[in-house]
Amino acid sequence: HDLERHDENPPGRVQGLAWTETGGVLLSVEAALLKGPGEMVLTGSLGDVMKESARIALSRIVSGTAAAMLNFDRTSQSIHIHVPQGAIPKDGPSAGITVYTALYSLLKGVPVGDDLAMTGELTLTGRVLPVGGIKEKLLAAQRRDISRVILPRGNQADVEILSRENTRGLDFFYVDQVDQIIPIAFPDGDAVEEPPRDADSRRTGDQEVAPG
Amino acid sequence: HDLERHDENPPGRVQGLAWTETGGVLLSVEAALLKGPGEMVLTGSLGDVMKESARIALSRIVSGTAAAMLNFDRTSQSIHIHVPQGAIPKDGPSAGITVYTALYSLLKGVPVGDDLAMTGELTLTGRVLPVGGIKEKLLAAQRRDISRVILPRGNQADVEILSRENTRGLDFFYVDQVDQIIPIAFPDGDAVEEPPRDADSRRTGDQEVAPG
Amino acid sequence: HDLERHDENPPGRVQGLAWTETGGVLLSVEAALLKGPGEMVLTGSLGDVMKESARIALSRIVSGTAAAMLNFDRTSQSIHIHVPQGAIPKDGPSAGITVYTALYSLLKGVPVGDDLAMTGELTLTGRVLPVGGIKEKLLAAQRRDISRVILPRGNQADVEILSRENTRGLDFFYVDQVDQIIPIAFPDGDAVEEPPRDADSRRTGDQEVAPG
Amino acid sequence: HDLERHDENPPGRVQGLAWTETGGVLLSVEAALLKGPGEMVLTGSLGDVMKESARIALSRIVSGTAAAMLNFDRTSQSIHIHVPQGAIPKDGPSAGITVYTALYSLLKGVPVGDDLAMTGELTLTGRVLPVGGIKEKLLAAQRRDISRVILPRGNQADVEILSRENTRGLDFFYVDQVDQIIPIAFPDGDAVEEPPRDADSRRTGDQEVAPG
Amino acid sequence: HDLERHDENPPGRVQGLAWTETGGVLLSVEAALLKGPGEMVLTGSLGDVMKESARIALSRIVSGTAAAMLNFDRTSQSIHIHVPQGAIPKDGPSAGITVYTALYSLLKGVPVGDDLAMTGELTLTGRVLPVGGIKEKLLAAQRRDISRVILPRGNQADVEILSRENTRGLDFFYVDQVDQIIPIAFPDGDAVEEPPRDADSRRTGDQEVAPG
Amino acid sequence: HDLERHDENPPGRVQGLAWTETGGVLLSVEAALLKGPGEMVLTGSLGDVMKESARIALSRIVSGTAAAMLNFDRTSQSIHIHVPQGAIPKDGPSAGITVYTALYSLLKGVPVGDDLAMTGELTLTGRVLPVGGIKEKLLAAQRRDISRVILPRGNQADVEILSRENTRGLDFFYVDQVDQIIPIAFPDGDAVEEPPRDADSRRTGDQEVAPG
Ligand SMILES: [Ca+2]
Ligand SMILES: [Ca+2]
Ligand SMILES: [Ca+2]
Ligand SMILES: [Ca+2]
Ligand SMILES: [Ca+2]
Ligand SMILES: [Ca+2]
Ligand SMILES: [Ca+2]
Ligand SMILES: [Ca+2]
Ligand SMILES: [Ca+2]
Ligand SMILES: [Ca+2]
Ligand SMILES: [Ca+2]
Ligand SMILES: [Ca+2]
Repeated sequence: HDLERHDENPPGRVQGLAWTETGGVLLSVEAALLKGPGEMVLTGSLGDVMKESARIALSRIVSGTAAAMLNFDRTSQSIHIHVPQGAIPKDGPSAGITVYTALYSLLKGVPVGDDLAMTGELTLTGRVLPVGGIKEKLLAAQRRDISRVILPRGNQADVEILSRENTRGLDFFYVDQVDQIIPIAFPDGDAVEEPPRDADSRRTGDQEVAPG
Repeated sequence: HDLERHDENPPGRVQGLAWTETGGVLLSVEAALLKGPGEMVLTGSLGDVMKESARIALSRIVSGTAAAMLNFDRTSQSIHIHVPQGAIPKDGPSAGITVYTALYSLLKGVPVGDDLAMTGELTLTGRVLPVGGIKEKLLAAQRRDISRVILPRGNQADVEILSRENTRGLDFFYVDQVDQIIPIAFPDGDAVEEPPRDADSRRTGDQEVAPG
Repeated sequence: HDLERHDENPPGRVQGLAWTETGGVLLSVEAALLKGPGEMVLTGSLGDVMKESARIALSRIVSGTAAAMLNFDRTSQSIHIHVPQGAIPKDGPSAGITVYTALYSLLKGVPVGDDLAMTGELTLTGRVLPVGGIKEKLLAAQRRDISRVILPRGNQADVEILSRENTRGLDFFYVDQVDQIIPIAFPDGDAVEEPPRDADSRRTGDQEVAPG
Repeated sequence: HDLERHDENPPGRVQGLAWTETGGVLLSVEAALLKGPGEMVLTGSLGDVMKESARIALSRIVSGTAAAMLNFDRTSQSIHIHVPQGAIPKDGPSAGITVYTALYSLLKGVPVGDDLAMTGELTLTGRVLPVGGIKEKLLAAQRRDISRVILPRGNQADVEILSRENTRGLDFFYVDQVDQIIPIAFPDGDAVEEPPRDADSRRTGDQEVAPG
Repeated sequence: HDLERHDENPPGRVQGLAWTETGGVLLSVEAALLKGPGEMVLTGSLGDVMKESARIALSRIVSGTAAAMLNFDRTSQSIHIHVPQGAIPKDGPSAGITVYTALYSLLKGVPVGDDLAMTGELTLTGRVLPVGGIKEKLLAAQRRDISRVILPRGNQADVEILSRENTRGLDFFYVDQVDQIIPIAFPDGDAVEEPPRDADSRRTGDQEVAPG
Repeated sequence: HDLERHDENPPGRVQGLAWTETGGVLLSVEAALLKGPGEMVLTGSLGDVMKESARIALSRIVSGTAAAMLNFDRTSQSIHIHVPQGAIPKDGPSAGITVYTALYSLLKGVPVGDDLAMTGELTLTGRVLPVGGIKEKLLAAQRRDISRVILPRGNQADVEILSRENTRGLDFFYVDQVDQIIPIAFPDGDAVEEPPRDADSRRTGDQEVAPG
């Protein structure tokens, strides 16, 4: 009954999965591009680790393999990252790949589907590190009608021990490197690069392959 | 007897509804445009969440659909946002759409009517999220002779359960997206864009439509 | 016997009335213009609310109706505001109109009379809001041989309930808008604009009109 | 026996009189001119009030009547003010006129005599306000072989009640305005302006006039 | 069985050995080059000493003997240093040479082998100072399949007292000066300079010489 | 046996003598020159007084008599000062002359001998003030094979009361002014200026004259 909850994402908005003391939650990351000299504005009552996480995502976007395809000039353009809701404090590194994907979506002008959510720590050289609270996060994904979930490969074992109930309706994509997210999140040929040859992100054990 | 309390708003001043420990209050948001390199000055004893809220409104103004119509150059002009009264601490995200509207009014040079008040959290991509304290805020609106109130659609249910007493003399406008505020707050053709086709902000259940 | 206490004010110095725990005091606001890129230097052990108050006054000077008449370029000139005595902490919004008047005096190069004092909160759009401690402030004004006092109109009722003793020797000017201060403080034709038609600042009930 | 303690002052060094919990002390203020964009560097474990005091002195130097005679460009030159000894915290506004005089000495390239000391709060418009601890400060001046002392006129009464013992060997100069210090501290015709006509700084009651 | 844990390092990533309350750990240092005016961005929940350590490494890279060979313009390029994992606080000076090597790898575009790890404090003039926790760090190196370890010569004695068990599978390289790291970490002729003649980093007592 | 501990100093490194709770220590000050707009980077867990001390040394270098001989442009070059070891907090003003000498050595490109150490507070006008802990500092100098020690003349009396044991193997140079250090630390004709005529730094009572 809550199909309306699926707002279409504009470019620059991506759903992340977060873990809080009261359970998992779906949490949007929003990005906007501003004129002006290379600021990074971070709002949403973000803690220091989450702020650093956003900084890493921005540095990776401008220094990684995707950089050449994205028209972004850090010296004359500024980025604003916001995580609603503004009054709720948020922290931790697990939104790293969500911020990266929101920036990619913004700078390419291509939206991601509203049935996609993700969680994972991003490092500066593009590795995706495992995060905690997988079970609670998947519960939140199901509750909010998410159908595709991108996770760090380091969390694959955490998913495989869950019951069929805990993973019902969800397709999983495991990634080692942040570049592997692009063909999953932007499947319509908008990808900057081909899916890496050795990525097995679409052949994940007992889950069906998400059409994209 | 307090018709005089209705000062005419100059461009850049908009009434918001806030919630305090001692009840709801009507609270102006004031904006001014300054020459100089892209500062955002925030005064009025604003807490961190409210400061971030103002930052979001500014980023949305310069990056959203309204941006093209507004002559504002963030690199050579500065914005000052003030919320009187200066000695009273204020916080929370619910003035987001009020700051947005004050900025729009300032940059277009068009005032909003002094019978209009609003409350709602704004996200960076323009969504309007529900806020708390609706009953107390409406009481303040009535006390200060407000006749039109803009609310997040997510608060419509909160209004519909109120008594006729609590909503007497008030017309309600519900919005999902901040752009939907423009034709309501600036009805005289000064709007940047047509009211969105699918906006039902003027067809709100049992309230009459405000003439604008 | 303390006529000598009336130093002639140079341009940029205006007397304000402040309220402290030990009673009202007369307190100068001093302004100076400096070359250099748009700083605002604030000294005098000012608290955050008072610093914001000075910031509002500066923004109002450069964005309000007086701006066109004042040769001030915020991008190449800096302002220093000081409130002696430096070792005494001061706070609150009630020096707002005093700072505004000091800036006006400085930028026009015209002094205000040393028999004039004022108190009132200034908002960014030029409104003058009522302040506290009126009785104590007027006592300080009398003690320091002030003869003309500018007050927010919102404080008129506070004055009208005082005894004849408490107002002896003082002429009162009530203002709604900060622009109304100019013809009172600078009566010799140096005013930027005519007194606003609807201002009743010179027709205040039972007080005699100050010649200016 | 400690005549050697009288180092010749280079331009930019002036002796001040300070008051500490253990009595009065003679304390140098040192100023240096640096290339570079308009910084003010303050060292010597200075408290906030003393830092503001130095800021006021700099603003006064560049905005007061002396400014035209001094080759100082705040936008391309920086000032460093230091108060030895670096490990001893210092605070208060009473070094205001000492910093002013050190800056004047530096920018004119003219030293002050090492027999001169001073104390007094400076305001932004050049007034010199009275300070505390006069008796203790004079004791320190005598101990360190100072012969001329510049004081705020507001402290004249504090001196006049002291015993002959407390003022032995000291000549006093009382000033209302900081400009009156120049002909006292720089008596050899290097003064920017004539002593103000109405200054009585050289006709101070029962003290003999210092030759300068 | 965990050969896959050996990710190939891209240019800019180097393994360090750190000491924590729960033992030694292998910890990557990652560096990225960004356009823009000379910032140094530091992320990874780094404490003040570790931040200073990174600053020293950057200054050494741009001022030491290697500088001429590295195309880096501190005034138009920025450096981002990150130490995963973002949520774990890290501190201390012992990553100094690891940051130096990561910067060298990044700026030369040459990766270091994934079998190499290092620990050592770096000084601004290029000295490598001994650090603590050697035994625990070597245990972590063995656990993570490291085969070559660079250590401060000042730690040579700490290694020589360890049991054969504690050093099994590890080749040791001792350095006094940070320049001596280059031929060890980049053995394929990419080195900026010849191994220093008097360096005995490859003739370390009872360890075999690592082929590079 | 620890002659090797005497690393040759490169230009920019000078030994200082510091006092800690556990006794005196020899402590290097290291300086490096960086391209870029006029920063001063200070590392080594320095306390506020020590940071100010370094700032004073830099200002003195660029404003004192030596400035003309040193090719340093504060607006396009930056200075990094580091005091190993990075994890040990350090504070106090007594490294002032050591920082000055390190900067001089760096900017002239001339090293100081590794048998030289010094301690003394520097003021902005070049005076050298006495410091504490002389006995403990000299013990550290002896332990680390220092043979020449530069001290403030104000500490001469502290040395003269020490036993022959406490000063064995050390030659003392007493200075009033920081410029007097140059011919002592750089005796090979690299000095910017002649030894000041009235300096008696080489004729110190019962110590033999150091050959330089
Ligand atoms: Ca949908
Ligand atoms: Ca579903
Ligand atoms: Ca009206
Ligand atoms: Ca009404
Ligand atoms: Ca008068
Ligand atoms: Ca009177
Ligand atoms: Ca003398
Ligand atoms: Ca004497
Ligand atoms: Ca490998
Ligand atoms: Ca191995
Ligand atoms: Ca040697
Ligand atoms: Ca020796």
